[in-house]
Amino acid sequence: MPNSTSLHFLIDRSLAAPLFEQICAGLRARIISASLPEGAILPPTRALANELGVSRSTVVSAYEQLVAEGYLNGVQGSGYAVLSIGEVELSQRTQTKPRPQIRPAHTPMRPFQAGQPDMRLFPHRQWAQTIARVCRTQPEALLLANDSFGNLDLRISIAAHVQEWRGISATPAQVIITAGSTDAIEICFRALAKHGEPIGLENPGYLPLRRVAENQGLSVENLEIDSNGATLPSSARDIGMVVLTPSQQYPLGGAMPPARRHAFLQWAEKHNVWIVEDDYDSEFRYAGSPIPAMAGIDQLNRTLYVGSFSKIFSNSLRLGYIIAPENLVGRFRDNLHTFGTKASALPQQALANFMQAGEFYRHLRRVRRIYGDRRAFLLGRLEQDFGQYGSFTDHQAGMQVAFHLHNDSPDSLIEERARKYGVTATALSGFQDGKTALNGLLLGFCGFSNEEMSDALSRLKKAIEA
Amino acid sequence: MPNSTSLHFLIDRSLAAPLFEQICAGLRARIISASLPEGAILPPTRALANELGVSRSTVVSAYEQLVAEGYLNGVQGSGYAVLSIGEVELSQRTQTKPRPQIRPAHTPMRPFQAGQPDMRLFPHRQWAQTIARVCRTQPEALLLANDSFGNLDLRISIAAHVQEWRGISATPAQVIITAGSTDAIEICFRALAKHGEPIGLENPGYLPLRRVAENQGLSVENLEIDSNGATLPSSARDIGMVVLTPSQQYPLGGAMPPARRHAFLQWAEKHNVWIVEDDYDSEFRYAGSPIPAMAGIDQLNRTLYVGSFSKIFSNSLRLGYIIAPENLVGRFRDNLHTFGTKASALPQQALANFMQAGEFYRHLRRVRRIYGDRRAFLLGRLEQDFGQYGSFTDHQAGMQVAFHLHNDSPDSLIEERARKYGVTATALSGFQDGKTALNGLLLGFCGFSNEEMSDALSRLKKAIEA
Repeated sequence: MPNSTSLHFLIDRSLAAPLFEQICAGLRARIISASLPEGAILPPTRALANELGVSRSTVVSAYEQLVAEGYLNGVQGSGYAVLSIGEVELSQRTQTKPRPQIRPAHTPMRPFQAGQPDMRLFPHRQWAQTIARVCRTQPEALLLANDSFGNLDLRISIAAHVQEWRGISATPAQVIITAGSTDAIEICFRALAKHGEPIGLENPGYLPLRRVAENQGLSVENLEIDSNGATLPSSARDIGMVVLTPSQQYPLGGAMPPARRHAFLQWAEKHNVWIVEDDYDSEFRYAGSPIPAMAGIDQLNRTLYVGSFSKIFSNSLRLGYIIAPENLVGRFRDNLHTFGTKASALPQQALANFMQAGEFYRHLRRVRRIYGDRRAFLLGRLEQDFGQYGSFTDHQAGMQVAFHLHNDSPDSLIEERARKYGVTATALSGFQDGKTALNGLLLGFCGFSNEEMSDALSRLKKAIEA
Repeated sequence: MPNSTSLHFLIDRSLAAPLFEQICAGLRARIISASLPEGAILPPTRALANELGVSRSTVVSAYEQLVAEGYLNGVQGSGYAVLSIGEVELSQRTQTKPRPQIRPAHTPMRPFQAGQPDMRLFPHRQWAQTIARVCRTQPEALLLANDSFGNLDLRISIAAHVQEWRGISATPAQVIITAGSTDAIEICFRALAKHGEPIGLENPGYLPLRRVAENQGLSVENLEIDSNGATLPSSARDIGMVVLTPSQQYPLGGAMPPARRHAFLQWAEKHNVWIVEDDYDSEFRYAGSPIPAMAGIDQLNRTLYVGSFSKIFSNSLRLGYIIAPENLVGRFRDNLHTFGTKASALPQQALANFMQAGEFYRHLRRVRRIYGDRRAFLLGRLEQDFGQYGSFTDHQAGMQVAFHLHNDSPDSLIEERARKYGVTATALSGFQDGKTALNGLLLGFCGFSNEEMSDALSRLKKAIEA
């Protein structure tokens, strides 16, 4: 048996670190550097305590800590021996690294960033008061989800919302709260699409959805867009699911007319296909009432409706929902049981109260009016001053307009130049997978005042003319 | 050109629905039932207004709404014509369905459910006050994430936490807030594993992780468990990533000793493998200090550290984090840019303040003491009264104990019988993929008082003896 080792240990009582931790750190370092080799017996606790001038119990605690960490072995009657730690030469633990510069807290949006609400219009105070009231009266509701599908009050509010605003009859039992609409679509893929199965996605469309699908091992079949929105898949491949934006095609705009909706529903019924209706900004219609959802016409037989609070509230709230056909509720329960929900319970009760008290609708109606004015301003200016550069269709809805360029200087080049002028004008060609005939700019109008847009338009003009 | 049609329309002024909506609904129904066929010209707005006794603008609004919905076509000078809607016979929109019974709001936990904190011990009032203070003083922080990696104050608090509690030196720039630890591991898979690539998962282990990996098109290589935790992969297959629980193997318990940790790190360095360290409950160590994380030894060269607030706070908060090696930060940024974050901004500022004010640590220290007492109680009783049924190892850590059964009546049968007695004793065999030699019960001790456990133990005894 190797002899017990003297440690020539130094304790620094001026350091903030407790003596116990200094002893642990010193022993660890000696074991890692092999100055205490495998099999070495440590000094008896009493001897080391005397040597260091600390209490014996401090040394016992340190030894026991290193036993728990696996550096030492406590042998009954023979004290503590060093265990093998392998042969890696390890760098010593360093002190906290200096904190590097992190990008500034909040980068303000630049005109004409698309799909973003104007958070300056948000009733932060009313929302904070609603949360604070939950804090006072239902503190447990902040941390307890009462169901894997989410807070029941919120699901009741959402069922009432989609009934009134989207023409969908569903019970709260069919409502599943998600961490936003991408999470909702991911859940639909996971619960209903088979691995390797082709799914139909609109092209042009929201390209990150392709990455989500491919990441889940699904292959993507392009649904081309014509003037009536997505077209039926041309290929005979066995498609299991399509994701559509029938209320307002993304990014080109325009609602899918009833004939095309019915053609999709009929085809889905015949071929046993699920339709995911991504209804990302349908509350923003500036003439007449919102156009009823496809899921409302279908009575949810083949349609999974996906809604979101990202456009009315904020993208950072991370709340969306699925309205599932009644006969799929069990399947979604099983799926969420395995994978867990990603939606935080914290905002849910407050959001339910905010909806039930009408604050939500006051806000929605207010921003719809303001966004409508901004839309009218932008479209008027585009017609008046940008007619020679391109054209657009007025769909009287949504949060952005697709401006199709007449000349053939590539939109990506104009996007690049506009960025230098402090303007975000996203190239339409970037929404298309594969060869594209698209050449234009997607211009969001919700996040900016008329003055901001007016100023940005003159910079955009320079970028186009350059 | 077809003649314009008289509609024989009835308006019911006693209904709550506005006249505009009644006209829309009536026209929609006639178009869907084809009593207004494709191509039919609607009565001039003035004529219909007179017929119905409503203002002309009401009729114009209704016609325009149906143009927007795609049922009608507005033809300059010739009025409005019915468009094709396809050949489906559609059911009429029904009224709101009666609300079905939904399961009761909150099912209380049954002893000995594993991995669950006792929310009765949670300082709901202090937490609610912290949130309410954010509501008062920083209402914008409730809805604005200042970075795709999450709230900066929270990332600073987490960097300090892992430095002190887990021995990891990292800057806040390396901290990525996620919607819990499963989301964190999913993000690691997505950012670093190649499609079809084998990844190593512990077996027995947390089986839902297999579904997550397979769902992302990864194949799973089993890492068998011995008395030192996960073993190195035996096969020569080209593994790209392993997920380990070195602080406390799940579900069997026990920390991985330094020798095995170093063997993994050395192997990972040599074969270019990423190690995901799933550190799910390491704060709960009942003797000595927490065992430093593997990522602390490794200085994060090959290790991605995954932490969670699910055990200290609540699973419903849905917040976890990744500590990424510095050279991977850019890769994670790109990935989150494409896929988006799922973590709600709302709780983040409050959690940062809660940690900085020390409330978090007061709570953590308090529950650690109480859970330690409960653990001592359960282990004492198991030793005293259940010795003839099985055995366990005391790892002085974690939230549950693996009780290995001596006899060979299958654990799944005992789990089933215990459920009937109101006791959750999860079968260990259910944590193993494939053929299993495991036969035992996983017993959580954190969520229940000694009295509750005492009572449940006598029922568990009956279930074992039955």
